[in-house]
Amino acid sequence: MVTKYPQHITLEEAWRLLESAFAGYARKFKTETDITEAAGHILTRDIKAERNVPHYAASAVDGYALRAADTAEASAATPARVKKGKYQWMNTGAALPDWADAVLMVEDSSLEGDELLIYRPLTPSANVRPLGEDVMAGQIIAREGEEVTPALISLFLCAGLEKVPVYRKAKSLFIPTGDEIIARGEWLARESQRSGTVAESNSLFIASSFKKWGCEVDVTPILPDDPELLKEYIQKGAAEYDVVMVGAGSAKGRRDHTTEVFEELGEVLFRGVRMKPGRPAMAACVGGKPVICLPGFPMSTAVTLWSLVLPLLKMLSGHKLGSEKEIIKEAIGTKYSLAAKLLVQHSSPQGIEEWLRVKTALVGKNLYGWALTSGASVLWALAEADGIAMLPASALECEKGTEIEIWMTRRVELQRRALFQGSDDPAIQLLVTPVRRRGADLALRAVGSMGGLAALSRGECHVAAAHLLDEESGGYNDIFIERFSNGRRWKRILVFYRTQGIIVPRGNPKGIKSFRDLCSGELVFSNRQPGAGTRVLFDHLLKSEGTAPEKIKGYSQICTTHMEAANRVYTGLADATLGIRSAADALGLDFIPLAEEPYELVIPEEHLRHPGIEALIESLSDAEWRKQVEEMGGYRWPN
Amino acid sequence: MVTKYPQHITLEEAWRLLESAFAGYARKFKTETDITEAAGHILTRDIKAERNVPHYAASAVDGYALRAADTAEASAATPARVKKGKYQWMNTGAALPDWADAVLMVEDSSLEGDELLIYRPLTPSANVRPLGEDVMAGQIIAREGEEVTPALISLFLCAGLEKVPVYRKAKSLFIPTGDEIIARGEWLARESQRSGTVAESNSLFIASSFKKWGCEVDVTPILPDDPELLKEYIQKGAAEYDVVMVGAGSAKGRRDHTTEVFEELGEVLFRGVRMKPGRPAMAACVGGKPVICLPGFPMSTAVTLWSLVLPLLKMLSGHKLGSEKEIIKEAIGTKYSLAAKLLVQHSSPQGIEEWLRVKTALVGKNLYGWALTSGASVLWALAEADGIAMLPASALECEKGTEIEIWMTRRVELQRRALFQGSDDPAIQLLVTPVRRRGADLALRAVGSMGGLAALSRGECHVAAAHLLDEESGGYNDIFIERFSNGRRWKRILVFYRTQGIIVPRGNPKGIKSFRDLCSGELVFSNRQPGAGTRVLFDHLLKSEGTAPEKIKGYSQICTTHMEAANRVYTGLADATLGIRSAADALGLDFIPLAEEPYELVIPEEHLRHPGIEALIESLSDAEWRKQVEEMGGYRWPN
Repeated sequence: MVTKYPQHITLEEAWRLLESAFAGYARKFKTETDITEAAGHILTRDIKAERNVPHYAASAVDGYALRAADTAEASAATPARVKKGKYQWMNTGAALPDWADAVLMVEDSSLEGDELLIYRPLTPSANVRPLGEDVMAGQIIAREGEEVTPALISLFLCAGLEKVPVYRKAKSLFIPTGDEIIARGEWLARESQRSGTVAESNSLFIASSFKKWGCEVDVTPILPDDPELLKEYIQKGAAEYDVVMVGAGSAKGRRDHTTEVFEELGEVLFRGVRMKPGRPAMAACVGGKPVICLPGFPMSTAVTLWSLVLPLLKMLSGHKLGSEKEIIKEAIGTKYSLAAKLLVQHSSPQGIEEWLRVKTALVGKNLYGWALTSGASVLWALAEADGIAMLPASALECEKGTEIEIWMTRRVELQRRALFQGSDDPAIQLLVTPVRRRGADLALRAVGSMGGLAALSRGECHVAAAHLLDEESGGYNDIFIERFSNGRRWKRILVFYRTQGIIVPRGNPKGIKSFRDLCSGELVFSNRQPGAGTRVLFDHLLKSEGTAPEKIKGYSQICTTHMEAANRVYTGLADATLGIRSAADALGLDFIPLAEEPYELVIPEEHLRHPGIEALIESLSDAEWRKQVEEMGGYRWPN
Repeated sequence: MVTKYPQHITLEEAWRLLESAFAGYARKFKTETDITEAAGHILTRDIKAERNVPHYAASAVDGYALRAADTAEASAATPARVKKGKYQWMNTGAALPDWADAVLMVEDSSLEGDELLIYRPLTPSANVRPLGEDVMAGQIIAREGEEVTPALISLFLCAGLEKVPVYRKAKSLFIPTGDEIIARGEWLARESQRSGTVAESNSLFIASSFKKWGCEVDVTPILPDDPELLKEYIQKGAAEYDVVMVGAGSAKGRRDHTTEVFEELGEVLFRGVRMKPGRPAMAACVGGKPVICLPGFPMSTAVTLWSLVLPLLKMLSGHKLGSEKEIIKEAIGTKYSLAAKLLVQHSSPQGIEEWLRVKTALVGKNLYGWALTSGASVLWALAEADGIAMLPASALECEKGTEIEIWMTRRVELQRRALFQGSDDPAIQLLVTPVRRRGADLALRAVGSMGGLAALSRGECHVAAAHLLDEESGGYNDIFIERFSNGRRWKRILVFYRTQGIIVPRGNPKGIKSFRDLCSGELVFSNRQPGAGTRVLFDHLLKSEGTAPEKIKGYSQICTTHMEAANRVYTGLADATLGIRSAADALGLDFIPLAEEPYELVIPEEHLRHPGIEALIESLSDAEWRKQVEEMGGYRWPN
């Protein structure tokens, strides 16, 4: 079959296709609305005032109407005087009598019996709002294509307008589909958590985004993977709504029938956009209406919503589509832009615009940004990110230090944010909130003990954390810190001792008693990354037992945090892992203690006065934090 | 009486007073809400995931689960083969079976009978979403003090959360007051337009702004000026709402009892803020709740809402109050900031921050900004402005060229906007929309014919317009353009001939027949500003009649546009004015023709390729515009 529509096009091309397909439909959006409902709508023609505002010459102050000529000689020392009948009290807004031409502020007057004393000379028209001062009848007060603001609504009323001609807003429908997708109620019922199910969460993202944009959206029940049913819903949707979104795949999978359904029902405009995530996005025209396929992964849905659906909604509602970048910046809620350097290198796919979720920190004079993850399925990264960086299609291997532009979606006080790189620990993760309560901020990157010290030596963080065993001396950290600091003054703070041990499923079904039992080669182990203190410990223990790494099943299965490693045990993917007690406790797993190790923060002297570091050091004594840490278990405070 | 509270303080001081008075009250805003209602709310504590997301190892693609080891030798040329039972179909999101460790994308496979052909080698975990890839049970997924975003709501559901702890939003009440204020229905009924009435439009501005901010507000009926009634409403409001706003005066007028009422009911926190507009703003604590007085002029209400009420609402709802500037920028809806030069000098009051409503244009390399008006009562200026510039308290006489920072509330394509300065004409005002339809923009400043030529000679606009009578030759414009252009090449475009004449009330009650009748000294005249072409004509005609200007009543009553001058006739403030027929027609006034004059655009050659000028020149042939002009009457196209 010959495909008759464009595939894998640029976003810009996708926009032009949507514009040319639906420009005619957009013209049908012209309507009239009550002024109180008009906010955010685009005017379809110029608006003229029907009245003068004000519609009479009005006093602009509280005071006395009089003739300016009568005040000519007045001064604070020798007030002018006028008799009753030649002045009249005015409230602000009162109509000036015919015979008067100015208003004296009450502060500049006093009364002596019937006589008014005037302490300031006035010119004609002083403190008078002339008729039509604000707007005049017949004057154009707003123009075609402009958005109605709160100020305009208020002005419309004053100018005698009850309704205004606007583009109405598009009404949209979202159809979630998929055999594996389950609805909120079922999902939240604990017992429903079978493998192979996914919460239908995209409709929440969509509903909440639409609300923010002031647009309406309805959501259908979740459809199973059934082309006939989908066809029926799309047809009904296209009849009743302006825009239909289908949450579905458009790839070549067995149940990815969306493409065929779109082809049958109408004209496919394009399939596949050169962006990541969101690449499988697709659009069709069904019965004259736009139907958009939103690929199902949360981040793909988000990107398609921002880059295709919002521009389409805007176009239908009379907005001029400006530059691609400007609309996308608005869609994601950009507050401001920053230029930063990549903290870690990033490989971007060829010929595709990539949306990075980026976190930022300022170390010395270097503003760094790093991508949290590039997976379309990872929603947390979007919630955690400070902003979005769009890597152009031309970007391939972006070296560390490459400059990127970040569209910041939250305000970050960079001068007050400290960057932590080092050994992962759940207790450290709990420090962010106490630091923030002290008016500073802390960004955490778990890169292992060795990775943290290396970053510190390169000036790429304010603080590192390490628990590195020196196999020769049996001591911790000293030799490593000496090596990396290379003579610079680094302050060390012993935060706590923590217990490392073997984490096994609850009830210890394999009856593991000591490290030796792990070396049998029978058990599946979940390992940590090279350079992690826990990995150093594991390799050391293996060596002590004389066991070759190859003998350990799962040795190459790498996790980068304690929780991730413990999780593999919790879900039966591994029989054991090495880790700290708090990770075992968090998941209700059993724990066989092996060693207690010191966990130290390392801070170069020049960063000690950094607001984030000061707050971090203070937070180590925070009573609430210490209580949380004690409750986690497996920690001991130094004396 | 000794005043016990601060008066005329800075905005910063006002904030600190509000913060210290209501920080305790803010803590009572902690509540819990369904995740779907949580958008825009601030979290009161850290949120931990209750589940792994995903909660099983899942296929990330549509394809076949298999063992990575079986794919080791695969290539596009020589596919690897696996038998039935060693592969299994996977929809995206399906749970990986125990025996498999990778998923082959369907695109990289084909089936030959029961046998799967593999065209690409895989590593273990390829195309598998590990358990907890997104978030892990127990992981902190959002922190105290963070705002709930659409992405977080979606993540909350996936992570098994039904409700989240947030600060609820404040519920506010607005009480409009004033004997002169009338409600919408009454206002829109034509017959109600007596002098001394003002539409209650502030509640529309407030309701629409609150909606934009995601906050609730109720509005009471309009109260007359009655202290007892106001007291009752404030007390009831403070009992039922979190924030009460009173639309009223706080000056020293006879009916400005708000201050006394505030003093009686509770503790006044401050009265008067050093800003313009909004200076009479006042705040009190009544029954532990904040009560804010919003001064009644529309722009004063707006400024008080932006600078005091929104920060208060944010504080109560758990936001950290950042810098003053940042919150105000958010309140007014700033899209971006620009640095511009003042086009006209501006006098700012001493010791007071002034909010200017600014319009912008880029001429050559100079980005100019000019204040539209500084009156608190003028709402149009707010609707028309491109943005707000805050002049610091230290600003006094700001010379032309002074640099100002503009917080732009709309996107302006400055490169495509032409700046027109010159003679006012209603037909020219209608050109903005045709210019915009051509993808460009036009900003108009009515400064009179002479003013326009002078601006053009200083390089302060792209186009001027003139109809200046040369008294000696009886011709128009030539000598003036020669003088101002000073040898530079200026293109002249004759737009139309327009009829100047005497504008008199409908029915011509004073029986005016010719210019001579105006010279009697009996009639009140409405005059135009020096330098206006119409003024030049008037002075010329006076001279021809041998009449001294002093003989003309109202000679010094200056209007700067035709419509303004005609309006004075329309409302009986003047018996006659000189102007163009279209102004008379717009208001249904009578018109006695005197002369036909050429109206010319003047454009320096270097601006002829400017997109705004090109669109303007094109628009002069726009059929719709020409039809509108013809319908207005009093214009004749050149042959």
